[in-house]
This record gives sequence, C-alpha cells and structure tokens, in this order.
Amino acid sequence: MAELLEQINSPADLKKLPVQQLNALADEIRRFILSSVAQTGGHLASNLGVVELTLALHYAFDFKKDKLLWDVGHQCYTHKIITGRKDKFKLLRKADGISGFPNPEESEYDQFTVGHAGTAIATAIGMALGHTQQKENSKIVALVGDASIVNGVSFEALNNLGLVKRQLLIVLNDNSMAIDPTQGAVAKYFSKVRLSQTYEDLRKTTHNILEHMPVIGKSVDEAVERIKKGIRMVLPASQMFESMNIPYFGPVDGHDIGALVQLFNALADLEHPSILHVYTKKGKGFQPAGSQPSRFHSTGPFKINNHKNRECVEVETAPKTGRPTYTNVFGKHLTELAEKDDKIIAITSAMRDGTGLVEFRRRFEDRFYDVGIAESAAVDIAAGLARSGLKPVVCIYSTFLQRSFDQIFQEVALQNLPVIFCVDRAGFVGSDGPTHHGLFDIGYFRMMPNMVLTAPADETEMKLALEFALSEGKPVVIRYPKDFVPKQKSFGAACAKPFKLGKSVVVKKEKESAIAIVSYGSVLAEALGAVELLAGDGIAVDVINARFAAPIDEKIIQLPGKGKGIITVEDHTSACGFGSAVLELAAATFDKPMTKPIVVLGAPRQFIKHDTRPLQLMQAGINADKIVQTVKELLRAKSLLGKA
Amino acid sequence: MAELLEQINSPADLKKLPVQQLNALADEIRRFILSSVAQTGGHLASNLGVVELTLALHYAFDFKKDKLLWDVGHQCYTHKIITGRKDKFKLLRKADGISGFPNPEESEYDQFTVGHAGTAIATAIGMALGHTQQKENSKIVALVGDASIVNGVSFEALNNLGLVKRQLLIVLNDNSMAIDPTQGAVAKYFSKVRLSQTYEDLRKTTHNILEHMPVIGKSVDEAVERIKKGIRMVLPASQMFESMNIPYFGPVDGHDIGALVQLFNALADLEHPSILHVYTKKGKGFQPAGSQPSRFHSTGPFKINNHKNRECVEVETAPKTGRPTYTNVFGKHLTELAEKDDKIIAITSAMRDGTGLVEFRRRFEDRFYDVGIAESAAVDIAAGLARSGLKPVVCIYSTFLQRSFDQIFQEVALQNLPVIFCVDRAGFVGSDGPTHHGLFDIGYFRMMPNMVLTAPADETEMKLALEFALSEGKPVVIRYPKDFVPKQKSFGAACAKPFKLGKSVVVKKEKESAIAIVSYGSVLAEALGAVELLAGDGIAVDVINARFAAPIDEKIIQLPGKGKGIITVEDHTSACGFGSAVLELAAATFDKPMTKPIVVLGAPRQFIKHDTRPLQLMQAGINADKIVQTVKELLRAKSLLGKA
Repeated sequence: MAELLEQINSPADLKKLPVQQLNALADEIRRFILSSVAQTGGHLASNLGVVELTLALHYAFDFKKDKLLWDVGHQCYTHKIITGRKDKFKLLRKADGISGFPNPEESEYDQFTVGHAGTAIATAIGMALGHTQQKENSKIVALVGDASIVNGVSFEALNNLGLVKRQLLIVLNDNSMAIDPTQGAVAKYFSKVRLSQTYEDLRKTTHNILEHMPVIGKSVDEAVERIKKGIRMVLPASQMFESMNIPYFGPVDGHDIGALVQLFNALADLEHPSILHVYTKKGKGFQPAGSQPSRFHSTGPFKINNHKNRECVEVETAPKTGRPTYTNVFGKHLTELAEKDDKIIAITSAMRDGTGLVEFRRRFEDRFYDVGIAESAAVDIAAGLARSGLKPVVCIYSTFLQRSFDQIFQEVALQNLPVIFCVDRAGFVGSDGPTHHGLFDIGYFRMMPNMVLTAPADETEMKLALEFALSEGKPVVIRYPKDFVPKQKSFGAACAKPFKLGKSVVVKKEKESAIAIVSYGSVLAEALGAVELLAGDGIAVDVINARFAAPIDEKIIQLPGKGKGIITVEDHTSACGFGSAVLELAAATFDKPMTKPIVVLGAPRQFIKHDTRPLQLMQAGINADKIVQTVKELLRAKSLLGKA
Repeated sequence: MAELLEQINSPADLKKLPVQQLNALADEIRRFILSSVAQTGGHLASNLGVVELTLALHYAFDFKKDKLLWDVGHQCYTHKIITGRKDKFKLLRKADGISGFPNPEESEYDQFTVGHAGTAIATAIGMALGHTQQKENSKIVALVGDASIVNGVSFEALNNLGLVKRQLLIVLNDNSMAIDPTQGAVAKYFSKVRLSQTYEDLRKTTHNILEHMPVIGKSVDEAVERIKKGIRMVLPASQMFESMNIPYFGPVDGHDIGALVQLFNALADLEHPSILHVYTKKGKGFQPAGSQPSRFHSTGPFKINNHKNRECVEVETAPKTGRPTYTNVFGKHLTELAEKDDKIIAITSAMRDGTGLVEFRRRFEDRFYDVGIAESAAVDIAAGLARSGLKPVVCIYSTFLQRSFDQIFQEVALQNLPVIFCVDRAGFVGSDGPTHHGLFDIGYFRMMPNMVLTAPADETEMKLALEFALSEGKPVVIRYPKDFVPKQKSFGAACAKPFKLGKSVVVKKEKESAIAIVSYGSVLAEALGAVELLAGDGIAVDVINARFAAPIDEKIIQLPGKGKGIITVEDHTSACGFGSAVLELAAATFDKPMTKPIVVLGAPRQFIKHDTRPLQLMQAGINADKIVQTVKELLRAKSLLGKA
C-alpha cells in the first residue's frame, strides 16, 4: 500500500526518488494523513492541500541547512511525515505524542513553534538578516497562506522585506480559505485573478518564469524592472507586490510537483527576496474536505465509509455528552437577544464557526462582520461602532485576542466605550496546545481602567453574563472555555440570579467552615466536585462563585479577616489572574489584618503541551483533586496562624 | 497681528470668511502655534505641516455633524485652535490645560483620544458601519499620515474598507516623515512618486480629479474602473490602492487651501470610500523645523531669535540637570558593548532618536534596523535574529510595545529566545499623557513563561542590567523611565554589584526596623527620599532594591514571616505589577504564615492626565511622601496583627 512512504524517513530519502515518483508518494501521504486524522482528529483540509508543495520544497531545498518557516503551521503534517515523525502520528496532538504545529523541540527541521498567523515573513527576515551578519548562505523559505498574508504583521514584514539583501523566498499558498473563506480586498483581488486563470495559463506562467529566470537581475529594482518588461503580462497578480517593490512570480499550479521543483531550484538562486504564488486546493483528494473545508479545517475523529473513492464520511465521532458547549449557548442566546435589540452587532476575525456565530450571521447578515485574520482592526472597528451608538460584540479566541492588546487599551478602555468582548477558548484548549491556550486574558484585561471582567460558570450564567454585558453601557469581557456546559443548566438558585456589577454569589454556605473556595468562571464545576470529595472526609467548605474579576466583590476579601481561609480557583495563569486580583485588594486593606491565608490556584508560569483539556487542568493543578489537597493542606497549616 | 484668528471661535466662524482669506488665517495660526509651542513645548513640525489641510477640512465639512478622525493625533493643534480651544494653548499639555492629542472630553469635535498610530481607518470604518445601521448620513473623514498608513492595523483596515458601502474619505497626509524618516517599501514607493511630481503636476491632477468627479461611479468597482480609464495616467500612486480596490485620487498640494476645499466638496459626495493623497511639508513656515523635522517633532520650550524670518532658533531650554537620561546611558553603553560583541543588533520602530540609538546607528549602520511604525514585525524580526544566533536588542517605548504582546508571547517567550527588550518610557511620561504612559509592561511581560524582568535604579545599574541581559542567553526585559538618572552614579556599593538572576540587593539595613521598602527600578530614588524624611521623625526602615520582577527574590517574601512589614514601590499600575508578583509568591508559601503585611504602592486603575512626571507620580501615590505616609500607617496598623 505505502511502499514509497515506507522508505522515507528523512528528506535525504526523498531525494533518492526520481521526481517522477513523487506523485505516487504524494498519493500515499494523502492516504496516510487521511487515515491518521480520521483516528486522532486534527487539521485536515489544509494538510491535504499542501502535500505536493511540501514534497517539492523538500526535494529542491535541504532543510537541514536551509530554513523552512511555516506560517500558522497547522498545515505541516507532510513536513512532519517526511522528517522522521510519521510513526508518531498515532499520538498526534495527544499526551507524549507530536504536536499539530511545528516545534523545534521535536525536530531540527522546525524553526519556530507557531499557531498564530502572519509571523513567518517577519521571522524569516530576521533569520535572513542574521545569516547575512554571520555570512551564512543557507536558503530561507517562508510558506504563507493567502489568509495569513493579509494580516497586519505580514504586511508590516512585507513592507520591510527590503531590509534583506539576499535570497529569501516567500511561497504564497493560495487556497482562498482561512478557517472560513478569506475576507477583504486582497482576497477579492486574488480570487478575481484566480477565476481568470485556466490550468493552461498556470502552465504557461511556469514556462514563462523559467524562461526569464536566467536574466532576472541581481538587485530587487532590476528584477522588478525585468519582470515588468519581460513577463508582466502573464503575471496578473503582480501589481500589488510590484508597488511594494517585491519581485513576484506566478500564479502557478501548487499540485504540479515537477514544475514546482524546477521553479524552486530557479528561485533559490536569486540573490534577493521574491514571492512565488501557488494555487492549491484545500482538502484535495478527499471529497468531503474539498466541499466542506470549514468543517474539515480542524476535526475530531471521523469515519470514512468508502476508502477507495474517499467520498463518503460519517459525522465526527465526538464525545456524546448531549450538552451544548459554552460557544453554542453564547451563539444561540446572542441571536435571541439580537432579535429584540437591533443595536447588537457581531464581529469576528476568521472565527465565525468557532465562536458560534453561524446562526447569527444567517439571521442578521447585515449586522455581522468577519474581517479575516485581523484581530487588531476588529477591535478598532468595534470601537467605532460603539462610538456611533451601537453594541458591538467582539467574538475572538483568548489567544488570538492577544493581537488586540493595544487596541483594547487605546480604543476601548481609554475611551470607556461599551464594547463587549466574548472571549472564547479562555483557559486550556486541549489538543492545539500552548500556542492556543487562553491563559493571559484576565491579566491583560484587568490592568486596564474601565474594563469589567466577568465569567459564567454554567449555561444559565452564560446567558445572564451576556445580558448583563449588553445592558451595562461599559466595556465588558466575558470569558469561557472550549468545553461543554455542566450537566445541570444552573448550579443552583444563586447562579440563576441576574448579574450585578462586581457582585459574587454564594453557592454553598456551611455553618462551621474554615475555608471558602472562591472560583471564577467554569471552574466552579471543579470547586463543587471538590466539595463532594471533601464531604466524604467530613470536611465542609463554603463555595463562592466570584462572577467578576474586575471589580472584585469586597465581600470576598473580608473573609480572611473573619477567620476564613480562601482558596481561589481559575483556568488562567496564576500570574496576574483572578486570584492575584483578590490578593491585591486584600493587601490594600492592611488596616484590617488577615488572620487566614489566601491561596491561589491557577496555571503555573510554564507552557503546558497538547493533551486533553481535563488532563491539562490536572497538570496545572486546577481541578477538584488539587482543590481537595489544598483544602487539607490549609487546614493543617492554619494552626500555624495567630488566631483560629 | 492676529486679526482673523481673533474672530474664530468655532468652525462656524471659519465658514464666514471667504475662502481667499484662509491663507492669511493659516499664516496667523502658524505664528500662533510657533509662539505657543516655543513657550510650552509640544509637537511642532507636524502641526506646522497641516494648517491649510485642517482649515480646508473644516471649511468643506461640518464636524459638528460630520466626524473627523485623527491618526496618531499629535498634529491636531490647528483643529483645536479653531474648535474653541485657542485660549487654552497657554496650558498645552500641562495640568488643567488641554491635551496634546484629540480628546472627546475636551470637545465634541474630537472622536477618540489617540496617540498610537494606525487606528483612524479602522475606527472610521466602525463609525461608518454604525451610521449605515442607524441610517445617519453624516460624512466621515480619517486623516492619516504616510508613516501611519503602513502600520499593520491600518493595512488590516484598508483591506476591510470594502465593508463600507457609503462615503468615507481617507486623507493621506504624505510628508515622508514619521518621527524619523519613514521606512519601508511603501515609503520608498511614495517617495519615488513624490520626486516625479512637479507643482505643476499636482495642479494638473487637481483639475483632472475635479473634472472627472461628476462621472465617478456610485459603486467602488465602477469608480475604480472609471479612474483607471479616465485619469489613471496622472495618478501615479494609484497602483497600490487599486489592487485593494480603493478609489484613489492624488497626489495634490496639501497647502493649496482653495483647491483642497473644492476637492473635499467633490469627494464628500461619493457614496463609497475613497483616498485623497496630499503632499504637505513637515515644519512648513519655520525653517529650523523644516530642516530638522526629527528635532522639532516633539520639543520642549525654545527661543526664536528672529521672529520675522523665523529662521533662527536657540537650542531647547531644557532643565539643566547636567545629568544624562536613562535613555542616554543605555544608548551609550549599548554602543560600547557592541564594539566588543558583534552579535549585538539594535532594532527599533520609528524611535531611533527617542530610544537613544543615534550613535549606535552611526557606528554600526549594518547592525541597526528601523522598521517604521511596525512594532509587531520588529519583535518577530528580532526573534528571527535570535534564532539565527545573534543578540537582538529591541528598543521600543513601553506603550507602543503593547502592539507586540502576541509576538512577545509566541515568537519570544514560547521559543525561549534570547531577545532583549529595552523598554523605554516605562512608567509615567509627563506631558504626553495617558496614551503614552508605560504602565502595563511588567504585567504583560511577567505573565509569560521564560521572561526575565529587570529594572535599573541608577546609572550604574542601567549599564549592569544591560550587561546582564546580553550575557544571560534568555529573553530579558529592562524597563526604565523617561527621566534623568539620579544625581549619584550609583546608590551605593550594593547597587554597583553585577546583576544576578533573581537576586535583589539590600541598599539599607537597620538593626531595629519594622518595615522594609522594596522598590523596583528607578523609584529607588523615591524610597531613599522617604528614608531621609522618616529619619527626621526618628523612624528607621530597611530598603531593598528588588532588581527583578521575574523571578522575584525569595528573600523578599521571607520578610513578613520574620516580623517585617513590606511596602513595595513601582512606577506601574498596581494591578499585575511588581508588588502583585510579590503578593503571589508570598501567598504560595502559606505554610509559613505572614505575620506582617505587604503593602503595594503603584498607580491606581485609572487614567492619569498629561502633567509633569513628578506630579503624575505624586498623583498616583508613587513618591517619597506617599511612602512616608504608608510607613506611618503601617506602623500604626501593625499592632493589630497577631505577632509583633
């Protein structure tokens, strides 16, 4: 079945094959990816699209010496397969297995652990400048998707490409898709060009480039000039890059391995940066991924019914909880609220599906904006909407919203504008690993004046938090994890009360308890799990659902002065998090001394790898067991304190 | 002298003048700005450049109803003068006076308080979408400089301009300068176009635009098509915007008020977004600012010797301390170290002068990179340099480095690469006010694993911190304020010892002291000031210079367990800052209970206005007086605690 692939344990093995055999190898790899991802889950459509491109790159370059930089990086499976990691695909994105993204700790063929878009060109520039300084002459290649190249960081890098006075090849992998279809003017431009090109045109362009290459000049200016004169007519997308003085070649067929190898060999000899624009088909070779690329962008395990034709597929075998996710509840309720309030506008940056806005968009197309991978602009556009009197709801994952720190500061917090941030994927995210965890958002939001920070603990609170945010007239953050809501719709009557600014709710109050567990957000479930376990040992504790991380309920920090120890729990790094805010407020009331300690449970200051979300929470010490252990330690330690 | 200006107290007054008189008014305003800024200091060159442009905008539009969005905003003086604020220029950027940036709290003519570049187009899009939703038809204008339009946020916004299906005018104010000369490919492109244009060409272009305007289509596609057919030949810079499907007009003369008014009137009627490219001269009308725009970008008070010709100017009348700033010491020492270590590379984003790199650049031109207003790309380029084995030193102001939060996370902290961040303007910055304070950097850096955070307290430590950072092989942050170093080169022998990772130094140790002041960075001077004041009252305290905010010296947090109260001091918001890190570490050792409190002195969670830096520190409660007061409160309160 996989005769060729069996022989490939390194790029050196690849180079032993004649170029004619690479198509057969590509087919084997495609089958390998398909059956692996069907079992483990992972990124599928994008990986199926770049099999030939990756093989051609490794065939033409020597990435033991040369440097290959991935942008986003979720499309690196073929690269991992042929750089000695194919046996590890059984544990793709699982504990002790390989990551779904490039990772220098795994292989010398990886340069950067990435997962956020738009960084490859800038890091490639840095490496190129470094090589120039150190008189190294290895080649540098950055592989960038059409959705990534329009990100602000990419553009800033393209604008600075002129710093590099040596070879640097940018391969623009154009499949006209981010997670969702690419947005914006550049995408429209690329798509117009794409529609105008027949396969025959792509072939002609390839020949044309190869024919002109020997006379392409050494300096960038010369190169751009010669391209203009010699082959511009067949390079329809050159205009945009020409205005930035970047020699542009293409578009060419990204599945024609032979042509790609020739092109790479030719472009490797240029002594200045250049761009090669290739067309690929996301999901190529697997009909369901080709026709539903969003669905198969990142998928859980699934079943293929007809392996031969690869045409039929069963729905994802996801864990059958029968429960919605926080995202589902949010998306549904936002749509319901928007029915009654036409000031509500939803904004996302290439995460329509992931943030639960499919139905909202269907229902309110003119009140929904997807700006593509442009988190910074998304927040500023939201600020403009709020200034005009509307209620913008920004829906971006916690980790990607890091891109908007400065815009949240200047355009939202400083203006005190009522922008609502619905921060999805807050906390540990499971199989995507450290590039995708949302562990910093409490910190980056709570430093800023005017921001209100809240987090729901169950399905009912998810709705209540949203209602609160939309009625408050302030900038409000709602954070929630990539997880299912708890079994019960609400953790009791206290959690069913409307949200009031800065007010916590008491979920459980004992007559004689020495300790209160104060949880922020979805980890209330862990706190209540701990209560059950402790009850088995005859230990009773109070449980408070903080609801707000800014402002903090002052009642919470009065407890240590009243002889009650506090354990705070949050799905966030303990540096700068909710517990840290509790400590700060408690420290500010030093005239009322604490007789009992405050203990903060949060993620340690280290990167936690891809794994399941529950195991990541366990590893970080943010679960029921750790809470139980801490309660017991605290009960032992409390005797050390002055007063009982 | 200023007969016309005296009549102008609002844009309505402006409209009473015939357009022919606006040139005379412009001259009066230019004189007014010049004499005001000579007295108070402020942004000069950029403001002298946009006098005519601003008058023409207010003449053509009605910004009581229409919306004018400033990018960066430091060039808003003419706007402030004619919107009723001219009498307040005596207190420009001073306590109780007006801000140097737009500010909606000052005037209904201001939409956003800004100061960071690249945000106007995105916020304008948001406002335009909001107006469409609410069926308002006021006009929207964004005024963006050529240095700002290449920022990533601007580009993301331009790429999303197609969301807007109504009027939105972007005025591209091209003076070919950021604070320093504009960098990058787009700047090169603009400059090439500029060099090709005579004044006669600009006039012809104006006529051409006005002539074709009546037939410019209603839809963007139609408009772009017609521009291509009708006037493209005279619009040399159109290519770049055309590829983004943005109707582009220009370049035209930004000092020809009559032509500008006609153009604005014509463009206001377009029912889709458009760009008008205008040429202005930074520093126009004041020879020294015209010839040294960097020097007169932002200036302290200065003297004009020859008012008539405005040709001679005396050097800035800066406070004569005879001492260098932290920036000076850093720049000089980096240059010295770079002599011996050719791996050292300096990177900045349009802040060469401000970060003290003029000499470094002169000496090591090939090891210096200015990427323009592109903080995000700067950090990623640095990461690439570090990956290639070099020692990149990123020199960016604290407030602007907020733009790089995500790049610091993914490309530096996650990879654990030895990038050095020299964070200038950390803490309060004085007259620029809240958009420019650097109050969040400790928080945003210390959340991230692997990052080492340090801050020097005096001139000697500035050098030692830099030496430490360059030898540590880790990502290291050095923060320092916009201030002069203390009088003495070093605060004693302890502060002259080399930096050791995570080790504090004891500056003052008393036999019988109940309290230790633990300062982080330059505020050691305030702590020592407090010691002197307290000595007058017979109160002795210890003083510890923490040197590191990550990792924190464990010795510090042992003090409260040993019966010694702690007061931490830092020039940073108290949320998530150094003191917060001390509280977190102390809380983690709950088995060794604290018998004495930890009190955190830092900036409150509110925005503090433009003022002098010492007064801002006073207002925030981060100075010697506040430390004294806190020591006394703590001494009174300590009896409340269990053990003595």
